[in-house]
Amino acid sequence: MSKYHALTEAEAIEYARGIAGVFPAGAQLQSREIGDGNLNLVFHITDPASGKSLILKQALPYAKVVGESWPLTLDRARIESEALRIEGELCPDLTPKVYAYEPDLALTVMEDLSDHIIMRRGLIEKNRYPRFAADIGRFLARTLFFTSDLAMNLQQKKLQVKSFINPDLCKITEDLIFDDPYTDSPNNSIEAHIRDAAEAIWADKELHLEVALLREKFLTKAQALLHGDLHTGSIFIKPDSTKVIDPEFAYYGPMGFDIGAVIANLLLNYAGQEGWSPDAAERADYRRYLLDTVQGVWTEFERNFRALWNEHAADRMARTPGYQDVYVAALLQDTIGFAGCKMVRRVYGLAHVADIDRIEDAAARERAQRLALAIGTALIKRNRSARSFDEVLDIALTAAK
Amino acid sequence: MSKYHALTEAEAIEYARGIAGVFPAGAQLQSREIGDGNLNLVFHITDPASGKSLILKQALPYAKVVGESWPLTLDRARIESEALRIEGELCPDLTPKVYAYEPDLALTVMEDLSDHIIMRRGLIEKNRYPRFAADIGRFLARTLFFTSDLAMNLQQKKLQVKSFINPDLCKITEDLIFDDPYTDSPNNSIEAHIRDAAEAIWADKELHLEVALLREKFLTKAQALLHGDLHTGSIFIKPDSTKVIDPEFAYYGPMGFDIGAVIANLLLNYAGQEGWSPDAAERADYRRYLLDTVQGVWTEFERNFRALWNEHAADRMARTPGYQDVYVAALLQDTIGFAGCKMVRRVYGLAHVADIDRIEDAAARERAQRLALAIGTALIKRNRSARSFDEVLDIALTAAK
Repeated sequence: MSKYHALTEAEAIEYARGIAGVFPAGAQLQSREIGDGNLNLVFHITDPASGKSLILKQALPYAKVVGESWPLTLDRARIESEALRIEGELCPDLTPKVYAYEPDLALTVMEDLSDHIIMRRGLIEKNRYPRFAADIGRFLARTLFFTSDLAMNLQQKKLQVKSFINPDLCKITEDLIFDDPYTDSPNNSIEAHIRDAAEAIWADKELHLEVALLREKFLTKAQALLHGDLHTGSIFIKPDSTKVIDPEFAYYGPMGFDIGAVIANLLLNYAGQEGWSPDAAERADYRRYLLDTVQGVWTEFERNFRALWNEHAADRMARTPGYQDVYVAALLQDTIGFAGCKMVRRVYGLAHVADIDRIEDAAARERAQRLALAIGTALIKRNRSARSFDEVLDIALTAAK
Repeated sequence: MSKYHALTEAEAIEYARGIAGVFPAGAQLQSREIGDGNLNLVFHITDPASGKSLILKQALPYAKVVGESWPLTLDRARIESEALRIEGELCPDLTPKVYAYEPDLALTVMEDLSDHIIMRRGLIEKNRYPRFAADIGRFLARTLFFTSDLAMNLQQKKLQVKSFINPDLCKITEDLIFDDPYTDSPNNSIEAHIRDAAEAIWADKELHLEVALLREKFLTKAQALLHGDLHTGSIFIKPDSTKVIDPEFAYYGPMGFDIGAVIANLLLNYAGQEGWSPDAAERADYRRYLLDTVQGVWTEFERNFRALWNEHAADRMARTPGYQDVYVAALLQDTIGFAGCKMVRRVYGLAHVADIDRIEDAAARERAQRLALAIGTALIKRNRSARSFDEVLDIALTAAK
């Protein structure tokens, strides 16, 4: 097994058996391939007798999206396993435990989290997660702060930037988030009933300028090691536990991109409540929960981030009076702008979200789509002038009126 | 000669003899080591009979600065030779021709430019270089534009960022430019008569905040491949020719750092005229020439940069209406801020400039030092609010009144 090939289920079982200390000797292991088949194979290996289980995630050398096949470097498995290791050291309770990484096979063996559910599904089911804002705020603050120049040796950080150069995965973001939605690209997937809204965005020069500036930050601002794809589909959750998975898009970029991704996906579900909560009072109630969570994500991020800065700033210059406030004010603006970009592309870009797409009633789905676009474009347009996180809540409330 | 060792002059001659097409067969070559011995050996190889000559530049595995010895990676020779190659392709008339690069010896063989003089010396001698602003403006515009995301394939650019990660040399900049001058560091070298001015800077919190923000850009903003050390000692010049040398500090950073370096060094000479031009009319006249050149550097940079952008923008997003203006406005601010940082450190940091240090009259030297600090600190403080390059000229004129 020294050279790369896609594992069979039998091979996955053999590999899993070799992981020390998980399965009893002679266990009758079962394997189920549960990946979506687009980017990775994901083998769920279980021992029904002991109840023990493992996940084997193997990168595939291509991406299959809407029938198209792109070659994609297996190096992303190295990047993902290394990002998981760093996130695991900084937030052991918020990441899956990694048992092994096999570079030749682009294979990572990790903790099975199937007692959790994907957060996107949880929100569609209108569950509430009272720990989530504090958990993800801490995850964001710790992973972003400790991988930045604020906390690291400046030379070590440069070597880390080098090892996380991730052109293939960044290209997906650059195309699908910062480019296609703002032009009549064949990659877009537009429901006929909102084509007018897409066309309005294609004609909106003010919006395009803001997107160009945000894209520039994504391309040049090597501020911290990002997860890079921190939507609610990358979060496993249950009421008492939050786990962040799948950091294969990890690279050094602007912190606000990760924070904005979390907020955008909460707001996409907020828009989706047009379909999921036909009752107005119920809708208002769940939306209040979502906005409280949105606010909480920022508040908890900011609180943790400032505390870490005050306690662990690497050097004299990072402790310059006033610097932290200017830095956090810029993070707020980046967060708002990237949140907007993350929302717009999920309505009619290549990859949609179930929070909106799975609304069966076409009129409700259309209302959700238009609401998501209204919130997303307002966030993008307001990013450079934003002074307070309250503006995010105002935008969401006003758009839903 | 397959493993690294510092060359002897005899070895340097043998190596030079092997470069095809330069020296006649059997030439009686002579070698003179003309490096300053701090970072590199520089062998000047000549054939008196034919008048042909070559430069061999070999990196040393340490830096000797003011008695201290720092280990320094030989990888900087690779970075320098690769940067010279890129600069040479973009501006063949403004860079030395490279004949060979020998990685094992950290050795670059290049054109001898000894018919030029180092620009710092030329300015101290009060020469005028009518082509300089146009030459360096074009050099800056072409090297910065064509290595940025504005012109490159975004994925290729990321790989280029990776190959120019340059921690050792960046550390020198981070310490000597962005840190030591703003605190009572043992690395500073302060003449007693200006200690009060240094102490005022150490207490100036408003200034420290701006320096922290500029340092952050140096640390995180991977905008373009910089020369990284573009002072007037890195420029060989004669009235009809400009050659940029020594890009061993090359890395991906903020464009304004290179533009600011050129402007700062012209303004350091402007301050130095306190000593070099005792006659007031003569002083005013040469300063007018210097300020015209300072203005010309920016004007020619901006003109060339905008023309390149209009003609060669890589993609649709780079052509977003309004984007170029916002981008250039930010470059102006970065340029002003970095120019200020480059000036302050040259007055009492570790490495000074001959434009000021070699003024023999102590009172004149002190006036020059205070003037350079006044201009430098004003540039730093004004960087984020600057809207026009005229502000640089205003600051210089006002400070010298």
